Amino acid sequence: MAKLFLFIVTSALFLSHCHTQNYTPDWPSIDSRPIPAWYDEAKIGIFIHWGVYSVPAFKNEWFWTEWKSGGCPACEEFMTAHYKPGFTYQEFGPDFTAEFFNASDWADLFQRAGANYVVLTSKHHEGYTLWPSKYSFSWNSMDVGPHRDLVGEFAAAIRNRTSLRFGLYYSMYEWYNPLWMQDKANGFTTDEFVTTKVIPAFKEVVERYVPEIVWPDGEWEALSTYWKSTEFLAWLYNESPVKDTVAINDRWGSETRGEHGGFWTGGDRLNPGYLLPHKWENCMTLDKQSWGYRKNAKIEDYLTPEELMRTLVETVSCGGNLLVNVGPTREGMIAPIQQERLLQMGDWLGVNGVAVYGSVPWTSQNDTVTQGVWYTASSDGSKIYAFVTSWPGESVQLGAVTYNPTITISMLGHEGNLPFDAASPGIRILFPRPDLTTSKWTWTLVITN
Amino acid sequence: MAKLFLFIVTSALFLSHCHTQNYTPDWPSIDSRPIPAWYDEAKIGIFIHWGVYSVPAFKNEWFWTEWKSGGCPACEEFMTAHYKPGFTYQEFGPDFTAEFFNASDWADLFQRAGANYVVLTSKHHEGYTLWPSKYSFSWNSMDVGPHRDLVGEFAAAIRNRTSLRFGLYYSMYEWYNPLWMQDKANGFTTDEFVTTKVIPAFKEVVERYVPEIVWPDGEWEALSTYWKSTEFLAWLYNESPVKDTVAINDRWGSETRGEHGGFWTGGDRLNPGYLLPHKWENCMTLDKQSWGYRKNAKIEDYLTPEELMRTLVETVSCGGNLLVNVGPTREGMIAPIQQERLLQMGDWLGVNGVAVYGSVPWTSQNDTVTQGVWYTASSDGSKIYAFVTSWPGESVQLGAVTYNPTITISMLGHEGNLPFDAASPGIRILFPRPDLTTSKWTWTLVITN
Amino acid sequence: MAKLFLFIVTSALFLSHCHTQNYTPDWPSIDSRPIPAWYDEAKIGIFIHWGVYSVPAFKNEWFWTEWKSGGCPACEEFMTAHYKPGFTYQEFGPDFTAEFFNASDWADLFQRAGANYVVLTSKHHEGYTLWPSKYSFSWNSMDVGPHRDLVGEFAAAIRNRTSLRFGLYYSMYEWYNPLWMQDKANGFTTDEFVTTKVIPAFKEVVERYVPEIVWPDGEWEALSTYWKSTEFLAWLYNESPVKDTVAINDRWGSETRGEHGGFWTGGDRLNPGYLLPHKWENCMTLDKQSWGYRKNAKIEDYLTPEELMRTLVETVSCGGNLLVNVGPTREGMIAPIQQERLLQMGDWLGVNGVAVYGSVPWTSQNDTVTQGVWYTASSDGSKIYAFVTSWPGESVQLGAVTYNPTITISMLGHEGNLPFDAASPGIRILFPRPDLTTSKWTWTLVITN
Amino acid sequence: MAKLFLFIVTSALFLSHCHTQNYTPDWPSIDSRPIPAWYDEAKIGIFIHWGVYSVPAFKNEWFWTEWKSGGCPACEEFMTAHYKPGFTYQEFGPDFTAEFFNASDWADLFQRAGANYVVLTSKHHEGYTLWPSKYSFSWNSMDVGPHRDLVGEFAAAIRNRTSLRFGLYYSMYEWYNPLWMQDKANGFTTDEFVTTKVIPAFKEVVERYVPEIVWPDGEWEALSTYWKSTEFLAWLYNESPVKDTVAINDRWGSETRGEHGGFWTGGDRLNPGYLLPHKWENCMTLDKQSWGYRKNAKIEDYLTPEELMRTLVETVSCGGNLLVNVGPTREGMIAPIQQERLLQMGDWLGVNGVAVYGSVPWTSQNDTVTQGVWYTASSDGSKIYAFVTSWPGESVQLGAVTYNPTITISMLGHEGNLPFDAASPGIRILFPRPDLTTSKWTWTLVITN
Repeated sequence: MAKLFLFIVTSALFLSHCHTQNYTPDWPSIDSRPIPAWYDEAKIGIFIHWGVYSVPAFKNEWFWTEWKSGGCPACEEFMTAHYKPGFTYQEFGPDFTAEFFNASDWADLFQRAGANYVVLTSKHHEGYTLWPSKYSFSWNSMDVGPHRDLVGEFAAAIRNRTSLRFGLYYSMYEWYNPLWMQDKANGFTTDEFVTTKVIPAFKEVVERYVPEIVWPDGEWEALSTYWKSTEFLAWLYNESPVKDTVAINDRWGSETRGEHGGFWTGGDRLNPGYLLPHKWENCMTLDKQSWGYRKNAKIEDYLTPEELMRTLVETVSCGGNLLVNVGPTREGMIAPIQQERLLQMGDWLGVNGVAVYGSVPWTSQNDTVTQGVWYTASSDGSKIYAFVTSWPGESVQLGAVTYNPTITISMLGHEGNLPFDAASPGIRILFPRPDLTTSKWTWTLVITN
Repeated sequence: MAKLFLFIVTSALFLSHCHTQNYTPDWPSIDSRPIPAWYDEAKIGIFIHWGVYSVPAFKNEWFWTEWKSGGCPACEEFMTAHYKPGFTYQEFGPDFTAEFFNASDWADLFQRAGANYVVLTSKHHEGYTLWPSKYSFSWNSMDVGPHRDLVGEFAAAIRNRTSLRFGLYYSMYEWYNPLWMQDKANGFTTDEFVTTKVIPAFKEVVERYVPEIVWPDGEWEALSTYWKSTEFLAWLYNESPVKDTVAINDRWGSETRGEHGGFWTGGDRLNPGYLLPHKWENCMTLDKQSWGYRKNAKIEDYLTPEELMRTLVETVSCGGNLLVNVGPTREGMIAPIQQERLLQMGDWLGVNGVAVYGSVPWTSQNDTVTQGVWYTASSDGSKIYAFVTSWPGESVQLGAVTYNPTITISMLGHEGNLPFDAASPGIRILFPRPDLTTSKWTWTLVITN
Repeated sequence: MAKLFLFIVTSALFLSHCHTQNYTPDWPSIDSRPIPAWYDEAKIGIFIHWGVYSVPAFKNEWFWTEWKSGGCPACEEFMTAHYKPGFTYQEFGPDFTAEFFNASDWADLFQRAGANYVVLTSKHHEGYTLWPSKYSFSWNSMDVGPHRDLVGEFAAAIRNRTSLRFGLYYSMYEWYNPLWMQDKANGFTTDEFVTTKVIPAFKEVVERYVPEIVWPDGEWEALSTYWKSTEFLAWLYNESPVKDTVAINDRWGSETRGEHGGFWTGGDRLNPGYLLPHKWENCMTLDKQSWGYRKNAKIEDYLTPEELMRTLVETVSCGGNLLVNVGPTREGMIAPIQQERLLQMGDWLGVNGVAVYGSVPWTSQNDTVTQGVWYTASSDGSKIYAFVTSWPGESVQLGAVTYNPTITISMLGHEGNLPFDAASPGIRILFPRPDLTTSKWTWTLVITN
Repeated sequence: MAKLFLFIVTSALFLSHCHTQNYTPDWPSIDSRPIPAWYDEAKIGIFIHWGVYSVPAFKNEWFWTEWKSGGCPACEEFMTAHYKPGFTYQEFGPDFTAEFFNASDWADLFQRAGANYVVLTSKHHEGYTLWPSKYSFSWNSMDVGPHRDLVGEFAAAIRNRTSLRFGLYYSMYEWYNPLWMQDKANGFTTDEFVTTKVIPAFKEVVERYVPEIVWPDGEWEALSTYWKSTEFLAWLYNESPVKDTVAINDRWGSETRGEHGGFWTGGDRLNPGYLLPHKWENCMTLDKQSWGYRKNAKIEDYLTPEELMRTLVETVSCGGNLLVNVGPTREGMIAPIQQERLLQMGDWLGVNGVAVYGSVPWTSQNDTVTQGVWYTASSDGSKIYAFVTSWPGESVQLGAVTYNPTITISMLGHEGNLPFDAASPGIRILFPRPDLTTSKWTWTLVITN
């Protein structure tokens, strides 16, 4: 039995209280800071991709460069057919109106979805800032479009709810910023873009909105030395207003993913299916094709609730956090289908959250006998949680769980214990009638020693 | 048992083949024409509200008059906050772009939803026509907005699918047409609006697009004599290209609902809960608050699939057809949440449609012992269908069905027969495990003599 | 001398007081009504071409049909280059904003220009009405664009100035009105367009705004019988609010110009150079290329003041009235260059108006010896006015004026009499130094018996 | 006579050939560079104010700050009445379309106007650049509005005409650039705006378009040390592509006007009426109220040709150059009234240019006996030119010219010499009949020793 409840105590790696260390601008020092414990325990976050791309709302949030690069003939046809010749991406800006944006409604929704943190795109690769940045004159949400400080309104609403932590995504590069293009053309022997734009605006947004998740992106074309990332991080860890609690990702330069920084993110939709030796995050989307809103999405493009819950438990079982992306409309609404999925996740977490929040990976991540069964454990090691991601019929065999008649087995959302017996290998557990459990889509067995 | 399968053979009232009668322009003659049998058998239609109101997409499709009448302060605030002073409703027209409108996609979706007919708003109370009407110069879908014949494209796509019949909604009155306002101000002693606009455009749309459902509306402020309805209907029944197959509603004048014309519609969302002595239709909406698209709808505003299926069986049980409304976006998409509900209905009908299409009302419409159970019968009287709209647990008692050991009882989407026994009153039927049936939301018992 | 002052007393042809005659709807009766005397005496009017064409303001006010007919490749290129595909003419409507339109400013300007009447395009061939016509729902200045009754505001401002009479231009045909196209396609065997649109709207605008000049146009493709012109005119002369004072032109059907109705207009810019046997009007433009505003006009496209004054005296000398056209901007301004020309005309008429207003044609219209000299006479025959349209140097010879030592000769804008002597033929008159006369561009000699 | 032709040889101050001096970044060194001789000889330039302010085209080119500062209630009313709430200045950008901008047409016009150089606003106080500046991402003429390099097109067209030199206006400050506002709020103890924006963009525009007139503005709120002006000028004079020929103004810091840099400009419309001890320029406008285009200008707001020629001769007589401003429309046209004034100036200079171009101030600048007479002299001292700005009647008395029977006096545009006699003081010259001279508005007497 001892073996049964042995697991990798990854939580030891997490930062749980104020630190006084002084970090130096080099990766060994930066990497020596543990990931905050709150982040690992939070498990579920909401990602929000919102920007001028929400106006064309076509193809995806990379619309600008897809259209301009020739890589998306449908994008070019869309523009040719529906816009006047020469129309520029920037001219979508005034239609990014956000008239229905109600930060409090968003915060309520994300809370009901069972999320513990949010990450908003403060600036995507287009360069447009969702706050009135000093470094983005005439290309920000106050000057063009909403005429509002979107980051500020959202930060205030989130902070008003103690269960939610506020985070910001920030794109390092900007496809068509001439200073970026110049530095790039110079083989990154110049850094005018970084020194006059990237770093000043990054510090501005951190100082102004105090995000506890700092989520850079768009870093991959240049080394972290170009981006001056370790200098920035030393500042973030030593001096910034979030130095004690901030969690960061690993997107700080072309060489840093899976190597440096905070939690790993890999490519997007990271979902390895096995335990990673480092805290990680699976950022993924409800609309399978896009992070930004698409006006012409079909229902088939959306994850079903079954797919969403399966992804959730796969991620958490393997030590990841799940960052579920929504793409609001240019008017500031989260489409009903996205609301529905979030609330389905919230309903599910309302029943099954005890097996998710604050859980830790178990010795096995998934079952080898029955496909689609994933495991976590309670942080004190007293319980194993087995997520059964499709209704098994009358019973399920768990090959990873050793039979022992003294254990008890129950199901979240179902009253009473479930009968079980030894199986080869493992145990077989009798499932109740589905109408006697309040869970849906994925069912959680609780195995208590 | 004879009593058990006695039912009102309403189908005898329906027109099933070409007629040669000549109708005169008076209600007794018009009303003497039976409703086409195809319409009664069809049971499920899709209603589409699409027009310039899809641009503000606020409050509902009555936005114009809600805003202007002072009856909707939120509408006034919306306009004041987001539009320039003096902006007129007509100036929304150019933004009704329909760029994603693909009639074939719509037709596919409606077919997959299990519908047998469609009814499109060719012209709503705003007066804007979705076809290039000769009588609506500069206020139609060719001159302003889509630059396309929306009715024509949709009619062609529907006709391309043999399972679907094409129908058109047509508003008689136009809130702000000065000729209407003049006739109204004159107490309907003048009829310039009817003679130069309503009737010519109505005939134009019928002749051009051959709709087999003709669905007027906006009739309620004036008698049918003002609208010249019986003259129009005599033409429709004697001379028009749809004279042999057309089904019509009862909205032909302030005195006609439930009295004259074709199927009854009552106020919208007609759902009496008992058998009406005349064929009727329940036109209702997926978005509970609006027929037209709303950009700021929340998921709570939409019917759940449970509510939708319950409404469906209530309607059909009481002799009605169900006309499920969708409100496409100004760009011509049907929002994913609406797609989802339609496909959920389609899934349900895929399992349960045999109890719906071509069914007839039974002697009882709903059960008096168990609430939420509704009945139909097969048209040959050999089967009773009992729709159980919420999962009953292990068994259900049907008070309206007399116990007889020789009958067999099964469930659509479930293999084999169900055990049953006498109950007082009626019978008690054992339900299977829910995971052994493919139906959801509402389950259909088949009681065979 | 008798011969000298013989002239055609055309004023006898003019109507000078209320009449009580009843006109019948046929040309002999209609044509029997004299032209009102006020109109002949007025001499100078202002024509205003303003409408949705003022938005593209390209090529001319026929932009719509020039663009669509393929007759103007530059128009097609303009649209292709600067508008989204499929953009329709009607979609220019919302940009016809008229925000600077101040009817009082216009009236002041036209008064300072020396005009006695104005003619505004109430509706041009595009069909858009500058008043909220009952017969042009959603395609009028209240519903789309200015949100104002432009005709009404202007009529009120004009009537507020006793020296100005108000008139309206009204296009019979509308290029793209489907009812017009239908009647035309039917070879004018149908008249739905005329009976439901042209005549009702024409009467509406006359009754509502009481124009004393009624100036139809767009009549040339169909006979006056199609247009029901004599019926309309019988109403105008017998019953309308302007029956006693209205002046009309001759554009009432393809056969009527120079034949029926009121003053003749010929093709536009009528300027025959000889006395016509009927009162006529030279409608002409300051921008030589267009009646409507052109955003890309060059100074070379405008008449010089010399050309304007020469045209004025040529016209008046030959019995015509001059109707000087301006094309306001979409914002409602009259461009400074047009203001300048009008005020130059006003300055000139301030000095020379006595020879224009109320004048009558003389026996000779222009001089046969010296080119560019034109004549009028005072209505009492006591004075001949000779307009010298280019500075002659030291003297001018007038071949048409018989030498007689008892006559006196002076120049308007110059003090004292001018020396003269017999010449062969006629007389030679010594000109003063130009700096001793206040006139410019054209100088008026007054020959008094 | 010696006295007569004594004049201040200001041309000695002008730079006439390549230099090899190395300038240091301090005013004594910068100021030691002579003004290029070509500039003094050129005398007449065209100023062009064109930018996003050409879209509202209301009040003047300071519209943004007039509106926002509360200093222009009419501006606020204009915005409130005609734009949606919250509309920002940047959102005018997309309507700055420049579709009719033809650089070659402009160059032709300015050449015909008699100008020898042009100065275009490459960036006004709004910050929007008329070229695709690397330092103004998304707020320049390529990204928003014309989608063209306006500076580049115009520079090429000007350089294609050997008689014209190309120059650029460049505003140092940008009212609403947050970096400017930050430096200002810091009392100019920081200079982020200057180092990351002002200087880099200034050098970029000089290097890219090679302007021979460099015309900064918007300098007055901070000392030249803040602006790093001497450093910039040392670069301009030592290294830039225009180091040998460039002429600059005196707007380099709050302390520099009339003190440092190149030609003096004073406040705008500098016209002192006496000889200044330094080369200067009178920049002035055809529209008396605005440098930028105004859509609601009236003819009274424009200079008359008399006023324009009088200003020209006053300026040149006192040693200044005249920089005549035009304000093109948002579509890229120069309004006909502005074309007319420029061509009137060109006509005048065609006759009188010999007394202007390359002329030098005379001992007297204007006449003390006859008001409105101004003097220049030929650069070799052999001729005095007396500009008589209003027609004097038969003769004019020149108090400043000493009587000497051996001199000859003629008039430009008139054949032969004019009689004259001694007067007290000076001489009296008989004027010809005005119809015997081809000049207008101002007449030039040539007094030859």
